[in-house]
Amino acid sequence: MGFMHDLKQAWQRNDSLVCVGLDPEPARFPAALHGDADAIFTFCRAIVDATADLVCAFKPQIAHFAAHGAEDALQRLIAHVHAAHPGVPVILDAKRGDIGSTAQHYATEAFDRYGADAVTVNPYLGRDSVQPFLDRADKGVIILCRTSNPGSRDLQELDVGSGRKLYQHVAETVAREWNAHGNCALVVGATWPAELADVRGRVGELPLLVPGVGAQGGDVAAVVTNGRTTDGNGLLISSSRAILYAGSGDDFADAARAAARALRDEINRYRR
Amino acid sequence: MGFMHDLKQAWQRNDSLVCVGLDPEPARFPAALHGDADAIFTFCRAIVDATADLVCAFKPQIAHFAAHGAEDALQRLIAHVHAAHPGVPVILDAKRGDIGSTAQHYATEAFDRYGADAVTVNPYLGRDSVQPFLDRADKGVIILCRTSNPGSRDLQELDVGSGRKLYQHVAETVAREWNAHGNCALVVGATWPAELADVRGRVGELPLLVPGVGAQGGDVAAVVTNGRTTDGNGLLISSSRAILYAGSGDDFADAARAAARALRDEINRYRR
Repeated sequence: MGFMHDLKQAWQRNDSLVCVGLDPEPARFPAALHGDADAIFTFCRAIVDATADLVCAFKPQIAHFAAHGAEDALQRLIAHVHAAHPGVPVILDAKRGDIGSTAQHYATEAFDRYGADAVTVNPYLGRDSVQPFLDRADKGVIILCRTSNPGSRDLQELDVGSGRKLYQHVAETVAREWNAHGNCALVVGATWPAELADVRGRVGELPLLVPGVGAQGGDVAAVVTNGRTTDGNGLLISSSRAILYAGSGDDFADAARAAARALRDEINRYRR
Repeated sequence: MGFMHDLKQAWQRNDSLVCVGLDPEPARFPAALHGDADAIFTFCRAIVDATADLVCAFKPQIAHFAAHGAEDALQRLIAHVHAAHPGVPVILDAKRGDIGSTAQHYATEAFDRYGADAVTVNPYLGRDSVQPFLDRADKGVIILCRTSNPGSRDLQELDVGSGRKLYQHVAETVAREWNAHGNCALVVGATWPAELADVRGRVGELPLLVPGVGAQGGDVAAVVTNGRTTDGNGLLISSSRAILYAGSGDDFADAARAAARALRDEINRYRR
C-alpha cells in the first residue's frame, strides 16, 4: 500500500529505475496529432501505454499542462495510469511550497484532485510548509535538494556552517527529521554526480529522484554508481524529452518505447 | 506601463498600501452563495468590487482555486479586475520555481494564460530558474525572502557566511543582481518585524510584499515603521482572511470594505 510500496514493487517487477517524465510540448507532437483537440492527453497516454512495463514511475510536470489550460487532461492521464497500469506510481512534479493553510490546499490539489501518488515540493519555506504533505503517509513527498540546473549553485551550494552546504543540510534534515512516516525522497540532479554520491552517503536508503540524464547531459554510469543503494535500487532516473520525442513521426510511441528500454538497459549495466 | 508603474500609481491614487489576498474558502462563504455553481468567482468579484479603490493590489492565491478545479474562475477574476478596475495590479501568488524550460511554462501560465501583472516565485533553484520571469520587464517578480510562517527559520535563518543569513543573502542578491529590469520585489512576513527592517536596510527602495498581518498576528505599526521607504511607500501589506471573512452574512462585501478601509487607515497612521 502506498507510494513507497508501489515504487519498490515496480523497481523489481519491471527491473527498472527509469522514470518517464511527461512534459508535453504540443509543438513537438507528431503531425498526426495536429488538430486533435485532446492532443496532450492522446500523446501522453500513448507514451504511458508504450512504456509502462519498462518504468518504475511516471512523472507528469504540471506546468506543461497548466500553460495550456489542460488540467483536465492531466487528471484523466493520471486516472488512466492507475486504471490501465495498476502499481505504477505517478509523481506530480509541481515543486509546490507555501505556508500552512495554503500548503494544505496544494496537498489537496496533488493527492485528491489529481490522485497523484507522490509530489515534488520545495523546502525553502521550512518544515511546516511541507507538513501537510508529510502527514499523508501513503503518499510520497519528494523534496528538492540539489537540482540539475546550473543556477542550483546560487543557494544550494552556500556553506551553512560546520562545513555543510545548504543542499547537504536539506538532505540530512529530511532523512533525520522529516521522514517520520518513511514517505520522503529527494531530488538530486544527474548533472552533479559527486553531489549525488555525497547525498547518498548522508541519507541511507532514501530514494533519490534524479532528473538530468538525456537532454541535460547527465552521465548514466556515474548516476547509477554514485546514487544506487546497496541492493541496486534507490533511484528514480527521470528522462523526459529524450524519450517523449525520440521519434517525430507516427511511430513516436514505438520510438519512445525503444528509448525507454535502451535507458533501462544502460542503467541496469551499472546497477549491481 | 507595467507592474511597477501601476503599483506606484495605485499607492498614490488610493492612498493605500493594502493588498487584498484572494484566498477563497467555499466553506466560509455566506449562506447566500451556497448552491451557486460559480460561487468562487461570485465571492471574489464581490470582494474586488467592494475594495478596489482602497487597495494597491489584489493577490489571488492559486492553490485556493486549483484545489477546487477553479482555474477558469481565476482567469475570469483577473480579467474582471483589469476590465472593471484598470490600474489595480494583480499578483498571482503561486510561489513557482523550476528549471529553465519548465520555468518558461510557469511564466506563460502566470502572465499569458492568467494575465497576471506579477507573480511570486521561490529562489531555491537559483537565478536561471527565475530568469524567464525576470525577462518579462513589464511584469513584477516577487521573490520569497523571509516568509511569515514559523518554519521559515529552518532554512532562511541559516548562516551562509560573513555573518549573513540565507534570507539576507537572497535579499541582497535580488537587489544587486536579479533586478536589472527594475521589476523585482521581495516577500517578507509581517511576523518578523526586525527582519523586515534588516531587509529594508539592504535593498534600498525595492517593494516588499508583507503577508501576515491580521489572522497571523503581525503588528501593523511595526511593519510600516520598519518596512516603509523614505517616501512612505514601498510596501504591499497583504491581508486575506481578516478582510474576506470580516462578515459571514449577506453583507460580507460591505464588511470586507470596512475591514480594508480600517487596515488602510491604520497603516496610514504610521506611514509618514
